[in-house]
Amino acid sequence: MNEIIRQIKNRKSVRQYIEKDIPEEITNEILKAAIEAPSAGNQQLYSIIKVTDQKIKDELAILCDNQPFIAKASLVLVFCSDYKKWYDLYEYGNCQPRELGFGDMLLSISDTVIAAQNTVVAAESFGIGSCYIGDILENYEKVKALLKLPKNVLPITMAVYGYPTENQKVRNKPKRPSIKTIVHENNYKELKDEELVDLVRHNIGNNTFENWIGKFCKRKYNSKFSEEMNRSSEKYINEFKKDDGF
Amino acid sequence: MNEIIRQIKNRKSVRQYIEKDIPEEITNEILKAAIEAPSAGNQQLYSIIKVTDQKIKDELAILCDNQPFIAKASLVLVFCSDYKKWYDLYEYGNCQPRELGFGDMLLSISDTVIAAQNTVVAAESFGIGSCYIGDILENYEKVKALLKLPKNVLPITMAVYGYPTENQKVRNKPKRPSIKTIVHENNYKELKDEELVDLVRHNIGNNTFENWIGKFCKRKYNSKFSEEMNRSSEKYINEFKKDDGF
Repeated sequence: MNEIIRQIKNRKSVRQYIEKDIPEEITNEILKAAIEAPSAGNQQLYSIIKVTDQKIKDELAILCDNQPFIAKASLVLVFCSDYKKWYDLYEYGNCQPRELGFGDMLLSISDTVIAAQNTVVAAESFGIGSCYIGDILENYEKVKALLKLPKNVLPITMAVYGYPTENQKVRNKPKRPSIKTIVHENNYKELKDEELVDLVRHNIGNNTFENWIGKFCKRKYNSKFSEEMNRSSEKYINEFKKDDGF
Repeated sequence: MNEIIRQIKNRKSVRQYIEKDIPEEITNEILKAAIEAPSAGNQQLYSIIKVTDQKIKDELAILCDNQPFIAKASLVLVFCSDYKKWYDLYEYGNCQPRELGFGDMLLSISDTVIAAQNTVVAAESFGIGSCYIGDILENYEKVKALLKLPKNVLPITMAVYGYPTENQKVRNKPKRPSIKTIVHENNYKELKDEELVDLVRHNIGNNTFENWIGKFCKRKYNSKFSEEMNRSSEKYINEFKKDDGF
């Protein structure tokens, strides 16, 4: 097993940090890892908001489902899909660009998340822990205002970084499901009944399936944050409707 | 510079492969790298279609904007966002799940692309080149039928992998833009006029900006494949509309 595979296997989310700043040159290496990532047509269809203002970190911690550890992270990056800057560039170059569409949106989202994951891998290589914050998809109106995001620049994911506490270093990584619940050969085969339970069997422990899944569903799916994420994301997506005008 | 940063910086898309299969144990390491990736709530909200059938590879090469090198790759993986299996699991567990929404869609897309990028990083660590194929977003009807994708399982990105030819090994990596066109501090600042040109200045060479951007726009944006990607992606996204029923 090479060092990269070892680090990928060991990497787990870190939500508690020691009080130690990430040196600027390492922050820059992490940001460069994003920019060096694969990108459709080498266009870098994303923008990264590096949050250094403690007030904005505090506000994000509240807006992202009230998670105070966000405000304590040394480095906070919001990854926004951004085809807008290319649209603006085409207009500046008198190219008469067509309107942005959902394909542009999805392609730029991929670019965005590819870059984000490179920062997580890069951080790990410096012994810096990280945690994705999907909750940045919530509270459309407030996040947009806080980060001054223009139309069509969508905050797709966020990640926070810091040096892990000893507790976090020794914490077990949550177990993953078996490969057969994820990988299909040649075409998709729907999981049925007990095959579905294989998605979570490694997490149930001494609990019953019904009890475990009932609680998990309430916490993660039939939950307020999740409904807010749907409301908020629908707003972002509606911005891409053609009849909306640009 | 550590080895991981070095590999991230050196990694470039590879579209020509020598005739050498990727050993099964290495393919499995690449797939495990996906499953070990960060994932919202440790849910792995994606499915991966490993395409081994040459006829399906051939068909994908056509459907993805006619790129024959796709059919010659040793390993072809289609990364699909898949909240559907969790929805099915919640139904199987009598959890009375709410309908899927756009937040679920975007969150599962992030999970999907995070996993995809881990496979690209893992492949690189074994000397295996890779290339993302964003064109998998095109031809909704045909891709869905070919891979037997059910509703709400969306092919977000594809990557193809193989051992690079000598030509590909020595080819220069396309230059990246400066960090200031990508990273904003605390809030988004719109690029204006010549700042926009910084997005592409490193690519223009001896050409004029107007000439270069005009050609690029025609090829990448005001282009048939791009319009098809918008049409096709809109179909995928419309499936997530609440009034569509599940």
